[in-house]
Parts: sequence; structure tokens; C-alpha cells
Amino acid sequence: DTANKVILCRAAIAWRANAPLSIELLEVDPPKACEVRIKILSSGICGTDLHILEGRNKVPLPAVLGHEGAGIIESVGEGVTSVKPGDKVLMLPLPECRECCFCLHPKGNVCVKEDVLSPTGLMLDGTSRFTCKAQKIHHLFGTSTFTEYTVVHEIAVVKIDDASPMNKVCIISCEVPTGFGAVFNTAKVTPGSTCVVFGLGGIGSAIVMACKASGACRIIGVDINEKKFPRARALGVTDFLNPRNLKKPVQQVVVEMTGFGADFAFEAIGLIDTMVAALESCRRSYGVCVIMGVAPNREQLSFDPQLINSGRTLKGGFLGEYKSRDCIPKLVTDYLQKKINIDPLITHTFHFERINNAFEKLGKGKIIRCVLLF
Amino acid sequence: DTANKVILCRAAIAWRANAPLSIELLEVDPPKACEVRIKILSSGICGTDLHILEGRNKVPLPAVLGHEGAGIIESVGEGVTSVKPGDKVLMLPLPECRECCFCLHPKGNVCVKEDVLSPTGLMLDGTSRFTCKAQKIHHLFGTSTFTEYTVVHEIAVVKIDDASPMNKVCIISCEVPTGFGAVFNTAKVTPGSTCVVFGLGGIGSAIVMACKASGACRIIGVDINEKKFPRARALGVTDFLNPRNLKKPVQQVVVEMTGFGADFAFEAIGLIDTMVAALESCRRSYGVCVIMGVAPNREQLSFDPQLINSGRTLKGGFLGEYKSRDCIPKLVTDYLQKKINIDPLITHTFHFERINNAFEKLGKGKIIRCVLLF
Ligand SMILES: NC(=O)c1ccc[n+]([C@@H]2O[C@H](COP(=O)([O-])OP(=O)(O)OC[C@H]3O[C@@H](n4cnc5c(N)ncnc54)[C@H](O)[C@@H]3O)[C@@H](O)[C@H]2O)c1
Ligand SMILES: NC(=O)c1ccc[n+]([C@@H]2O[C@H](COP(=O)([O-])OP(=O)(O)OC[C@H]3O[C@@H](n4cnc5c(N)ncnc54)[C@H](O)[C@@H]3O)[C@@H](O)[C@H]2O)c1
Ligand SMILES: [Zn+2]
Ligand SMILES: [Zn+2]
Ligand SMILES: [Zn+2]
Ligand SMILES: [Zn+2]
Repeated sequence: DTANKVILCRAAIAWRANAPLSIELLEVDPPKACEVRIKILSSGICGTDLHILEGRNKVPLPAVLGHEGAGIIESVGEGVTSVKPGDKVLMLPLPECRECCFCLHPKGNVCVKEDVLSPTGLMLDGTSRFTCKAQKIHHLFGTSTFTEYTVVHEIAVVKIDDASPMNKVCIISCEVPTGFGAVFNTAKVTPGSTCVVFGLGGIGSAIVMACKASGACRIIGVDINEKKFPRARALGVTDFLNPRNLKKPVQQVVVEMTGFGADFAFEAIGLIDTMVAALESCRRSYGVCVIMGVAPNREQLSFDPQLINSGRTLKGGFLGEYKSRDCIPKLVTDYLQKKINIDPLITHTFHFERINNAFEKLGKGKIIRCVLLF
Repeated sequence: DTANKVILCRAAIAWRANAPLSIELLEVDPPKACEVRIKILSSGICGTDLHILEGRNKVPLPAVLGHEGAGIIESVGEGVTSVKPGDKVLMLPLPECRECCFCLHPKGNVCVKEDVLSPTGLMLDGTSRFTCKAQKIHHLFGTSTFTEYTVVHEIAVVKIDDASPMNKVCIISCEVPTGFGAVFNTAKVTPGSTCVVFGLGGIGSAIVMACKASGACRIIGVDINEKKFPRARALGVTDFLNPRNLKKPVQQVVVEMTGFGADFAFEAIGLIDTMVAALESCRRSYGVCVIMGVAPNREQLSFDPQLINSGRTLKGGFLGEYKSRDCIPKLVTDYLQKKINIDPLITHTFHFERINNAFEKLGKGKIIRCVLLF
């Protein structure tokens, strides 16, 4: 029995940016009150993890990265009631305390207990549960999934259906709700509409699937990596644009292709230029531009305010604006009942210890989403 | 009978920016096919007219400015069916052709036949109906109301109730729908919410009235001119902030006053800095910022895209996103039936020939909205 004891396990530590992760022995403390310890079975690698490792987006290091995790509860701290040892769970990069103004608001999901906006890399009590080589190691977004065991707050974990295939559902922690929610919750794509999706990686692919499911009749996909096109076509993209092969700015081409611009534009890359291009690609009066990509720290988004005056809407939202604990288990159940399909979003699996190979392939654009298996 | 003849009348001509208007004799051509000629009875002066005259926002000059006009149809061109001589009408800075993709879309109102986005100052056939001192004079936004007679397209004019008080309803051409629509159509302010309104001039005052009518429980008014406060309080503002008297940026004060920021923020000034302040004043996750002010030409709006990632919505819209011909006569009828009140929005009246005095007082912040009477 491991409960109440420190667990020694293998974890991938990010000691610093722009360097490979190193697989080390990590000491994982037992969960304190309102916390749980989880044995991870699988974890996705998100573009956000890549950007952190590339130093584009800063978080406190050293840290255990990863925020798309599926696992089994190993032990629970005092006062935990919503999950028990043995439960299959997903970890949630946005917690849901169900008490704060954001959780209580019908449309709110950026819980006051989040650690995404200005990451501290610590648990809510200001400490860490991870130690490696006598050094405290940071958490990431209250999750940290690139490890055999992790500790998260009860409000950042949710029980899922016992029948869940644990080698797949991990991507329902971030990629699936982020992409689907951008379309269903944030943009509210309408049947017959024209959509343009900037970036055909993990998030962009999920966006494409949801646009198609919403009845969009034209889906323009934009990516500089043409290797992404055949798969994206199978998911629903009808027209492709590679900005590097165009003589004009891509937004101008989209506007010419569509008359006045798309009804809905999505940015799923994380660059300022493509954010502006997405905004300029959607039509005046009622066009909606949804920014899902996260730009490098400190870069400013800059554009002509007339784009807004003339009726465009610019929106965004973490995790597709889903309330995490309320909605994510339902997405898992929808998947089990074949109401939604997530299989096409997973293109590769790697054993956890090959995580650096996975990051390398992702960085080179050879992967949509890979799942690490433990 | 004046039909089919050139009418010689008095008009205020803007020969150039940063100079008084000059009252001149203007030759007004008869209406061509699908056009109407109107005898103006009253016109509001909008902040937009002031900004044009100050050279902040460029339109082709010389021109007859003014876009909030009420009048009577003097004559109609060939093929005009929706109005006839003698009808009381309002002029519309956004036309509604009822045929284009914007008019046919349930949420669209920026008709393809608009002349607001990149003003040509000409009628749709590329010519002008105005001549002064043997020189062609431009129209403004397809309206031009600072003249005893004007010519507009049939799609830019709408018949209103015969009982309409013509000395008041002119402001239902722009100020009223712009302010009310920002709240009812664009933001969709909810009961019990907290709103912050940047700018307590004409548009801001209409926004405040509509926030109050929507059941907002707290309305924070921001203006550098404290003379605007007593009137704004009577309309519904509960808290006032004068940014010039604060030690911290106004957005920081709003965030501290409200916990995480307002539910809804409105910009009704037309400056980049106050647009950013409005966006930063509304709360993450579900805050909505509506930009109604028009910034000086070529200035860029620039902010941290994390504001959008974390769930804020940035929107705008001309004329409060109302479909002009469909909705503006209903607002007039609502006013006649006392369902809405517009009287508090008119603080001054001037005889048309005193238009330069009116502009001077508006520029000095001594007027909310004035109506010119002809
Ligand atoms: N809002 C959220 O809650 C949320 C959640 C997850 C990820 N994200 C963000 O979404 C973005 C995408 O994540 P992902 O997992 O899909 O990453 P990804 O690496 O799988 O996909 C990015 C795609 O963009 C393409 N691309 C790169 N530069 C481009 C350019 N200049 N023009 C066109 N295409 C270009 C790449 O070829 C790739 O296909 C990241 O910024 C990530 O941080 C946001
Ligand atoms: N979107 C539309 O369809 C539409 C329609 C009409 C007007 N507008 C725009 O709305 C804006 C306001 O128009 P208006 O008619 O109400 O003008 P106005 O002159 O009546 O009001 C402007 C107010 O802003 C205040 N102000 C100026 N600088 C300020 C600052 N730095 N901080 C705080 N307050 C400040 C002034 O004191 C004044 O009370 C203009 O930009 C105008 O072009 C847009
Ligand atoms: Zn993610
Ligand atoms: Zn909460
Ligand atoms: Zn106006
Ligand atoms: Zn139209």
C-alpha cells in the first residue's frame, strides 16, 4: 500500500527551456487535504507543451509538464468526496471549484483557482508535491502529466466512465474540448456557413471536425505544412491555402474566395500575424474570429479598430469555454456512445520514455496528436 | 412645384477640416432613379461629425456633413415605391438594400451599398447632387443633413409615423440606435450585471439608458469632463470615475471596484487608449467589451492577446447592429408609445444657421446632443 507514503517514480523533467526533457526519478508526496494522487496511464502532448519547451511561453521551471492526462486514483487526501482510489479520471488544466463567480456564472469557466493565466507552478497552498535530486520541481497548470504519478487538487480531476479506453481519452482533457468548444460554444458555427481554420495541427483538426459537424458547407484550411492537408481533407477541409505559396496575404485570398470573408475564422497556431490574418479573413457585419492559439509572451496583438467597428467579433476562451468538471465526462460518454469521434485526432502513440522523440516529431510537424502510454 | 428642378437652398459646407462650416447657397439636383429629395426639418450633430470637422476622421471634402436627419419627401425619382412626396422620413447613415448578403443575413446590417467604410462622398452612380460656386460638393455617408434639402437613395430613407415630433426624432437616425443597439443587440446586457461606460456624451448617454433598462445593477461612468456627471447620474450611472483624478490607470480601478472587472464594458469616445482600457476593464471568462467609438484614421488598436485567450469578447457594430429600414421606424413608434424615452438625450436646440455655435459648444463638452432646427 502506497497511500500516505512518498512514491518514487519515473518522470520527464523540464529543467530548462530549449533542451530535451530528462527522465528522472521523482519523489511524489502524498496528497494533502482536498488533493488526490493519480497513477497516469496516458498523456497527450499539446502544442502548449511544445511552446513552453521552446521558451515561447514562460512557466516556472524546473517543472513536470503535460496537462492532458488520463489515469487512476491511487489515493486521496482528507475531505475528498468526488473521486476514490481506483476511479478512472481525467486531469483538468482548468479546475472547477463550483463556488467562485466564474464557476457560478452560466458562461464562466476560468475558475479563480486556475494556474494558467500567471502560472505559479505550485499547488494552492503555495508548495509543490514533487522533488527530484533534493530540488523542488514545479507543477504545470495544476496538472503535470509527464510522470508516472502526479498530485492534483480534487477540483482539477473528474471521474469518467469505467468503460473509457484509457489509451485515448486523455486528449479529452484539452485538445478535444478546446477545438470542439471553439466551434460549438465560442463561435457557434451555423449550418451552411463558411469557415477558415488557421493551423491544421491538433487543435485545428478538432476545430475542423466540429465545423463539419455544425454543417459548415465550406471549410478553408490554412497551414504552411502541406503534409497536414490530406488528413485535414478527410476531416472536412474543402479548400487549402499555404501562405508561403501565395502571392498575396492569405487574408486577402480568403476574402476574394468568399466575397467578403468567411463567416467564422479560427486561429489555432499561436502567432500574432496569423491572429490578425484570421480577424481580417472574416467578414464585416457578422463575422466571428475565434483565437485559440496562445501567442509568445509579451507580444501585442495590433490591428485597425475599424475591423471591430464594422461589426466583427473577436473572441477566445480556454478549453473551449467548457466548464471542465461538468462537461468533460459528458464528452467522454459521448465518445463511448459514438456521438463524437476523437480517433482521427490521435495519429501516433509512444511509450512515455520516448517522450523526447515525440516532441521532436511534433516540432517537425510530423504528428497531429500523439499519446504517451505509461 | 419644385419637382424635376434644381433647388437652391441654404447649406453648411465643410470646405476643409479645422475651419468653421460656411453657410452657402447650394444647388441640389433633382433625384435620379431610385433616389429621393428631402426637405430637412431637423438634424442632430453626432460626435462623428465633430471628428470629421477636426480632421481626425477623413472623408472627401468639400462636403455637406450631417447624418442624423428628419424631413419630408419633396420629390422622388423614377421607380421609388417605398416613400412618396409629403411623407415624414428619417435618413439612414447605413442603407438597407434588402438584397445583399448582409441585408439577407439575420444579423447583418452593413449593406454592400454603404458609404461609411471607405467614404467616396458620392451617390452610387459615382456622382454628386450638390453644387456650390460651380464646384461639386460631396455627400456624407449617403445622407448629408446640414442643408435645407438633400438627395439620398431610396434605400437610405424610411417613412416614420405621421405623428412623429420632427424636432426630436432625428436623433433616432444615429444616436439612439447606436447607443441602444450596443446594449440590446451587441452586448446583450443581462439583469443584475455590472457595466462600465467610457464616455458620457451622446452615444454614452444612450448606452447608459439602455444598460439601466436592461436591469444592470451597477453602471460605472468614465469621463474626463465632470460636467457630464449629474445628467449621467439621472440616467442611471451609479459610480463615476474621472481618469484625470485617479492615481492608477482607470481600468485597474474598475477591476478593483468590481473584483475581476465589469461584465460589460462600452467605449463611446473614439480613442485607442480608452478602447484598451475598456477591454481591460471587463472580466476574463465572460466579459464583453463593445467598441462604439471610432478611432482617428490609421491608429492601431494594440493589446495583450491573452485578454482574448482568457475569454473576453471584443465586439462593435455600426448603428447598434440594427437593420436600418426594418428597425428604425419601430424605434420611432416605440418612442411615440412611450416604450422608450429619448428626450433626455437632447440637451440643446439651435437654429440651423447657428451650426458653428453648436459645434463649438459640442467641442467644448457643453452639449450632450443638440438638434438643429430648419
Ligand atoms: N485556448 C486553449 O485553451 C488552448 C488549448 C490548447 C492549445 N492551445 C494553443 O493552440 C495552438 C495550437 O496548438 P496545437 O496543439 O494544435 O499545436 P500544433 O503544433 O499541433 O499545430 C500548430 C499548426 O500550425 C501550423 N503553423 C505554424 N506556423 C504557421 C504559420 N505561420 N501559418 C500557418 N500555419 C502555421 C503548423 O504547421 C501546425 O500544423 C497553440 O498556440 C496552443 O498553445 C490553446
Ligand atoms: N459605431 C457607430 O455606429 C457610431 C455612431 C455614432 C457615433 N460613433 C462614435 O462614438 C463616439 C462618441 O460619439 P458621441 O456622439 O457620443 O461624442 P461626444 O463628443 O458627445 O462624447 C464623447 C465623450 O467622451 C468624453 N471623453 C473625451 N476624451 C476622453 C477621455 N480621454 N477619457 C474619458 N472620456 C473622454 C468627452 O468628455 C465626451 O463626454 C465617436 O467616436 C463617434 O464617432 C459611432
Ligand atoms: Zn493543451
Ligand atoms: Zn471556481
Ligand atoms: Zn452618428
Ligand atoms: Zn444590402
